[in-house]
Amino acid sequence: MTVPHTLRRLAAALELEPPGAPERVFHGLAPLETAGPEHVAFLLHARYAREARDTRAGALVLGRDAEAPAGEGSPIPLRVASPHAAMLTLLRLFYPEPAVAPGVHALASVSPTASVAVSASVGAFAVVEDGARIGDGARIGALVYVGAGAIIGEGCVLHPRVVVRDGVQLGRRVIVHPGAVLGADGFGYLPQDGRHVKIPQVGGVRIEDDVEIGANSAIDRGTLGDTVVGRGTKIDNLVQVAHNCEVGEDVILVAQVGVSGSSRIGRGATLAGQVGLADHATVGESAILAAQAGVISDVPAREIWGGSPARPLGETKRIWAAERALPELVRKVRDLTRRLEALERGREA
Amino acid sequence: MTVPHTLRRLAAALELEPPGAPERVFHGLAPLETAGPEHVAFLLHARYAREARDTRAGALVLGRDAEAPAGEGSPIPLRVASPHAAMLTLLRLFYPEPAVAPGVHALASVSPTASVAVSASVGAFAVVEDGARIGDGARIGALVYVGAGAIIGEGCVLHPRVVVRDGVQLGRRVIVHPGAVLGADGFGYLPQDGRHVKIPQVGGVRIEDDVEIGANSAIDRGTLGDTVVGRGTKIDNLVQVAHNCEVGEDVILVAQVGVSGSSRIGRGATLAGQVGLADHATVGESAILAAQAGVISDVPAREIWGGSPARPLGETKRIWAAERALPELVRKVRDLTRRLEALERGREA
Amino acid sequence: MTVPHTLRRLAAALELEPPGAPERVFHGLAPLETAGPEHVAFLLHARYAREARDTRAGALVLGRDAEAPAGEGSPIPLRVASPHAAMLTLLRLFYPEPAVAPGVHALASVSPTASVAVSASVGAFAVVEDGARIGDGARIGALVYVGAGAIIGEGCVLHPRVVVRDGVQLGRRVIVHPGAVLGADGFGYLPQDGRHVKIPQVGGVRIEDDVEIGANSAIDRGTLGDTVVGRGTKIDNLVQVAHNCEVGEDVILVAQVGVSGSSRIGRGATLAGQVGLADHATVGESAILAAQAGVISDVPAREIWGGSPARPLGETKRIWAAERALPELVRKVRDLTRRLEALERGREA
Repeated sequence: MTVPHTLRRLAAALELEPPGAPERVFHGLAPLETAGPEHVAFLLHARYAREARDTRAGALVLGRDAEAPAGEGSPIPLRVASPHAAMLTLLRLFYPEPAVAPGVHALASVSPTASVAVSASVGAFAVVEDGARIGDGARIGALVYVGAGAIIGEGCVLHPRVVVRDGVQLGRRVIVHPGAVLGADGFGYLPQDGRHVKIPQVGGVRIEDDVEIGANSAIDRGTLGDTVVGRGTKIDNLVQVAHNCEVGEDVILVAQVGVSGSSRIGRGATLAGQVGLADHATVGESAILAAQAGVISDVPAREIWGGSPARPLGETKRIWAAERALPELVRKVRDLTRRLEALERGREA
Repeated sequence: MTVPHTLRRLAAALELEPPGAPERVFHGLAPLETAGPEHVAFLLHARYAREARDTRAGALVLGRDAEAPAGEGSPIPLRVASPHAAMLTLLRLFYPEPAVAPGVHALASVSPTASVAVSASVGAFAVVEDGARIGDGARIGALVYVGAGAIIGEGCVLHPRVVVRDGVQLGRRVIVHPGAVLGADGFGYLPQDGRHVKIPQVGGVRIEDDVEIGANSAIDRGTLGDTVVGRGTKIDNLVQVAHNCEVGEDVILVAQVGVSGSSRIGRGATLAGQVGLADHATVGESAILAAQAGVISDVPAREIWGGSPARPLGETKRIWAAERALPELVRKVRDLTRRLEALERGREA
Repeated sequence: MTVPHTLRRLAAALELEPPGAPERVFHGLAPLETAGPEHVAFLLHARYAREARDTRAGALVLGRDAEAPAGEGSPIPLRVASPHAAMLTLLRLFYPEPAVAPGVHALASVSPTASVAVSASVGAFAVVEDGARIGDGARIGALVYVGAGAIIGEGCVLHPRVVVRDGVQLGRRVIVHPGAVLGADGFGYLPQDGRHVKIPQVGGVRIEDDVEIGANSAIDRGTLGDTVVGRGTKIDNLVQVAHNCEVGEDVILVAQVGVSGSSRIGRGATLAGQVGLADHATVGESAILAAQAGVISDVPAREIWGGSPARPLGETKRIWAAERALPELVRKVRDLTRRLEALERGREA
């Protein structure tokens, strides 16, 4: 699936002067350890200096100040301001998005009242229910379920085996990975005589433009209103977003994060892996939560918190450091107490 | 999908006197913030007093003692003993369960030896294997897999893309959300020469009446006997219930809870989000575990535990409070030691 | 699905002398509590001595030194060196793997450019895309998706509703449980002007021989190279393995473990339930991580670590024990300070 390119073309894409062997052809990108002479590799961090020295790659993208491997057979250095940005540029060059033929697969089940754009595609054994709308260029993978009245915006990609339940709305260019479930019932019950009586969940889910949702994640529908995920937010695998949450724009939710009901997460916040958020909690704009943090109150904007219960990360780290001294501290206090008693007795005597 | 109702009808459903404008028509329920004059909204908690004051809802359900918004254009107040119970009543009134036409979809794959009740429905691309039994009024969604010999009781709802493996038994009115997997093999291996040899898992899963299971949750089959989930228990999304567990009746397992093998959870217990239970642990009746608790021993009935490792929540909270003082405590003890040494030297002198 | 066997046959399989009633027929294995006279039960641990005393099983497998229930109607004792190994032997005897008829189901969608071994099977509504290869005896369950160019080795079992995305490679005898997703995009973005720009993930996933992967787990494809899971590794349900990870051979990842990007886990390591591993972390060979551990640095080979942040388990347990004394310690230090001040004043006076 790779497209070969000359070094001249690569240099032009990176806005560099054409290097020594401009007609040399490259066939793709590869990690430092496995790259061959036909590959471009990347030195993304000083911690990989050893792998860069040993790489067999034909060309090496690296930062302006990074140390390039020297000697015969060394890769051609391509020095750039940001190797990460260069990697993104070359990925797009070498691995263009595969074109998907538009049309509905003969083995799909599409309701006659659904509307599928002519430029959209629907895969084998996909189900599109009554009144659903599939926008221009959208790709509905095999085995996907799109419920009644759901709206899938222009350019969305639903990978195989996604479930979008009835009435859920996706903006444009939303990417959803296999197994994700959008719009299952929120978890709401009324206690009556020791039993839990189900509260129907009649709200929806609204996913804004350019959101990406990872494999096997779940975003529940609201009780009355919508659960909302804001523009540009990226959600990793196995994440839970409960009913009535409002996740802001450009938020990052790393794998296995759990966001409880009616929480609000501000624009640009980052929740690292396995973070849990209690009901009705608020995370301010651009706040960062370290992995496994347990948030039971509110996190102010732009602060970094960690630990369970979550506190400002500086405070948490001081506690973690002091904890190591804790068993010794117990002994010291016992010793101090004994010595103090001895002094007190001496004084009384 | 909403059914409109007059205010007279709503009041009757809530067992209230007919209010001032009994013929006024309402079209549904909505959150305080987005409700319009055609909606009923709810003041469920004093923390939403501000939103209630600003709401444009046509009617507002609130508690007997709650403060009602006043002034022109204010919503008609509907005072009830329990706004939550009133919400449940009105949800059922406005949003009746959609009727599903019985019958097997032309694109389903149902074994000739399976038995499907005439009043049941089976969706597109669903698979029902040999000897499986689908009870009266049960709804088997699109893309669902029902394994050989599985039993789906009367009135069950299996949302799209549920997997029920062979021999699993569901009672009546069980609701299973998309992506849930019932009856995958338990995680059991015998160590032999540094390798892990799979122990076949030949037990089953038994789900009793009125259980609800969330999206992408997994309940493994037992090794020899059954993994059991008791009547009325409610399980949220992304929950793991391992082999041989016995989950009692009316239990609540919130999202991302992990229950290890052979655990027992007593009737009416609540495990909040991301709680983990070790192998062979026991949680007593009506016990409560706070979010992210890690249970390595047994939790007595009716107690509230939290923290990792889990302890009685009162003790855990005292530890959390004292932790904040810990870095300062280390310094204080160092200072006390120095001062004590000075006193000791003075005494010796 | 059970095959009946005489006691003589069972004894032979366990390499025991034929016991008193060699022609007595048994119909299967059962837990101590539910076994009847036609069942063999197992005393696997002294903690179940009471259940063994009360069992109605016809035969009881137990260790050489375990106490056998005595008295009329007691089960026939079958004494072995390892009751667990005996259980494995008898499971294989009573519950042979069901034979699956080879062939492609009439309702599967298999690309003409895919290659399916004659001895393999493909279930209803399974999708096998262009250029995919299904090896000898492999079983592709109903509703499974196998992407373009993916390789499914000899003897693999893909349970219903697994997703294997394009180019993913499975070795021989790999077992994948329902809902698992292999090869979804890794979670990688480049920050640009406060937004997150997707980095295409063009690497793959390589699963070696004899790996087992639990229900609803997710293993992401690498950015440039492969995410690798080594031979014999066993992965439980709802586990996340992020892009570019290298999981060694014979590793155990228990339910809900989260392994962040570019981590390396050495041969024979065990990560208990809900453990989280930070980016670029390393876990040494045969290391063990206790449940809910949060690893932010490296764990040396053969060590046992626990807690969040993870430390050597002995140290963590000493901290946990000392924590209980912490609130009292704060009081004690306050008291010591007061008394010391009194002494100091006395001295000055």
